[in-house]
Amino acid sequence: MDDTQAVSRRRFFGGVTSVLGALTLRPGFDLWSQAPGQAPAPRRQVTLEEYDAFAKLSFNENPYGPPDSVLKAMTKAFKYSNRYGYPDGDIVEVLAKHHGVKPENIMLGSGSGELLDVCCTTFLEGDKRVVGAEPSYNVLYQTASALKADQIKLPLLKDYRQDIPGMIAAVKANYRDIGFVYLCNPNNPTGLVVGKQEVAQLLNGVPGDVPVLIDEAYHHFVEDPSYATSVPYVLEGRQVIVTRTFSKISGLAGMRLGYAIAPKGLLDQMRPHTTGTINAIVKWGGVAAMQDTAAMAWVKKTTLELRGKTVSALQAMGYEVIPSDTNFFMVHLKRPVQPVVEEFRKKGVLVGRPFPPMVEHLRVSIGTAEEMNRFMVAFREIFPPGKTAAG
Amino acid sequence: MDDTQAVSRRRFFGGVTSVLGALTLRPGFDLWSQAPGQAPAPRRQVTLEEYDAFAKLSFNENPYGPPDSVLKAMTKAFKYSNRYGYPDGDIVEVLAKHHGVKPENIMLGSGSGELLDVCCTTFLEGDKRVVGAEPSYNVLYQTASALKADQIKLPLLKDYRQDIPGMIAAVKANYRDIGFVYLCNPNNPTGLVVGKQEVAQLLNGVPGDVPVLIDEAYHHFVEDPSYATSVPYVLEGRQVIVTRTFSKISGLAGMRLGYAIAPKGLLDQMRPHTTGTINAIVKWGGVAAMQDTAAMAWVKKTTLELRGKTVSALQAMGYEVIPSDTNFFMVHLKRPVQPVVEEFRKKGVLVGRPFPPMVEHLRVSIGTAEEMNRFMVAFREIFPPGKTAAG
Repeated sequence: MDDTQAVSRRRFFGGVTSVLGALTLRPGFDLWSQAPGQAPAPRRQVTLEEYDAFAKLSFNENPYGPPDSVLKAMTKAFKYSNRYGYPDGDIVEVLAKHHGVKPENIMLGSGSGELLDVCCTTFLEGDKRVVGAEPSYNVLYQTASALKADQIKLPLLKDYRQDIPGMIAAVKANYRDIGFVYLCNPNNPTGLVVGKQEVAQLLNGVPGDVPVLIDEAYHHFVEDPSYATSVPYVLEGRQVIVTRTFSKISGLAGMRLGYAIAPKGLLDQMRPHTTGTINAIVKWGGVAAMQDTAAMAWVKKTTLELRGKTVSALQAMGYEVIPSDTNFFMVHLKRPVQPVVEEFRKKGVLVGRPFPPMVEHLRVSIGTAEEMNRFMVAFREIFPPGKTAAG
Repeated sequence: MDDTQAVSRRRFFGGVTSVLGALTLRPGFDLWSQAPGQAPAPRRQVTLEEYDAFAKLSFNENPYGPPDSVLKAMTKAFKYSNRYGYPDGDIVEVLAKHHGVKPENIMLGSGSGELLDVCCTTFLEGDKRVVGAEPSYNVLYQTASALKADQIKLPLLKDYRQDIPGMIAAVKANYRDIGFVYLCNPNNPTGLVVGKQEVAQLLNGVPGDVPVLIDEAYHHFVEDPSYATSVPYVLEGRQVIVTRTFSKISGLAGMRLGYAIAPKGLLDQMRPHTTGTINAIVKWGGVAAMQDTAAMAWVKKTTLELRGKTVSALQAMGYEVIPSDTNFFMVHLKRPVQPVVEEFRKKGVLVGRPFPPMVEHLRVSIGTAEEMNRFMVAFREIFPPGKTAAG
């Protein structure tokens, strides 16, 4: 077994020591993966105070946490924390009603990440390959790697959009070997949407029996009118799996709740590969989150305002920023990102790691107003305005 | 794909409607599985009040819920509920220290159930078979079935103990096809331990490269001096995986936290098959639970007292009870259990389903004193003392 296989998705949810310690001691270390042949990074203890003190703009988290309504619902549900079978707020029915689908079209996961995993284990069995963009959400590809499944990764276009015709061609050229297509929309790490016409082009362009996994983790932040959710394709019975998460708009990343919306036939194939181990209280949290539309609207509004303000400030300094429809953005530094990440960390600001091959773009998650101020102060120190890299 | 495959482990953690509704409408329906060819049971809405009102003695749950110390730790950890990388109370290090192993010997799971799943997906790949007792924890076999893996299930001996020589012989006779051996100790649903000498016999009797999964979910309730944990075998580097859970003694079944203790080599093989999606707050709950030894001792003492009292009452009525070292026991009714389960339910008491081939033994989980009183009142109504089935 090579080291690539030994990478667990667990790394993402590990202790702060692995998250921050690695950064401290190994400047070139990618938090999300371990290069073949490399030993694991040594760990450094980071205190709770040090953790709290960081401006955390590296993981596309919602900095506000779940709203009070959700915390209240979860706290009330502690009464089920000792149970296996328990009332769950009818979360599946609530989600089905919201999306206008049947309960049989909904599958819960411990975060949408579990459902991405399940798609890999279900559809890549038997040496099948996944087709997608690069860079995109790289955990999907890491999971495929861990399962020894091949990946056909299409480079982004010059304007950073995903190469839909390229994906179609790749599927057609390797039809018998394709397990599924992965489309992150909007894409992580670029923040760019795939317009509804391009989604239609993709779905109409690939053979109808090839599952297309459309990851809408950042759906709630989108304003671009060319975008639309792909849920209606599920109603048409197309081989489409849409994933959503409570991690972003509802601030429940650590609580682990997401779901897939798909035709029953696809979910039936996926079901044996789920662990079914969803926490009792987050189901109640999810129901409360769906009902608290005001909280969602506030998170969206606040996040987009802060994103706009930060992006404008960077553009005013001469930096190019990729237009984002998410709670993060990418700024082109025109120099390698990794040392810059280190400089930010020394100033108490955690920013995104490099996303090869975009190693000169810095991904910045939208934190609180105070965190974004700290980011801009640090940015101006690292990139003094007189010495702009742009131009 | 047949219906067996479509059975998800998710059923165990579904809403109360599936748990209770099925019982209501389909007397012969096994909550844990769906027979091939059967349609899913129709659902009946059960109100929260109805759920609360049941004496819940069917799932081997801890009726008291997590102690205050654990609830407090989890509530405090809500501050990490929006994070991916976060301080986790160093749960892995705490567990390693407790067991005298290295952190590399510990793997967390969303309940020990996830780790049982992971053993199946890891070690049954390539048409491998699992060897174990029947009945034993049947989710393990359902997972194997869902993965289309064959199972060699050894009937229990006349005294309900597991057939260790039979397991050894089965492994030797099918050596090249064996993925792993499953030993639930104490066994569920019988409650009987496998003594340390028999564990040694098993481990010395099978080829040294066959992984043996020893499920110690009920470890904390054992008093039998012939029993010992199998953790020391891990220290010896034997191919042993011991699983433990916070679900029982710590009352955290719905929160999902368990772990495996095994040589690094085995965990490295298992790691790619984990989802790594453990809830942020239950890690803190687990650390608090490890520290609250008084709470654990109280749960054990109270549970064993109530078990002793209930078992004595049944024995006084002439019923044979299998000696249990767990938070449940089995009483021999000498008639089919399923209709009895229905009668109990009508009296507001949920008791265990049939565990084929032991379809005349009723499994009863130890609830609170009040619940055990309700169980005995119902038992005396269903089995009037003058008409004992025994003899």
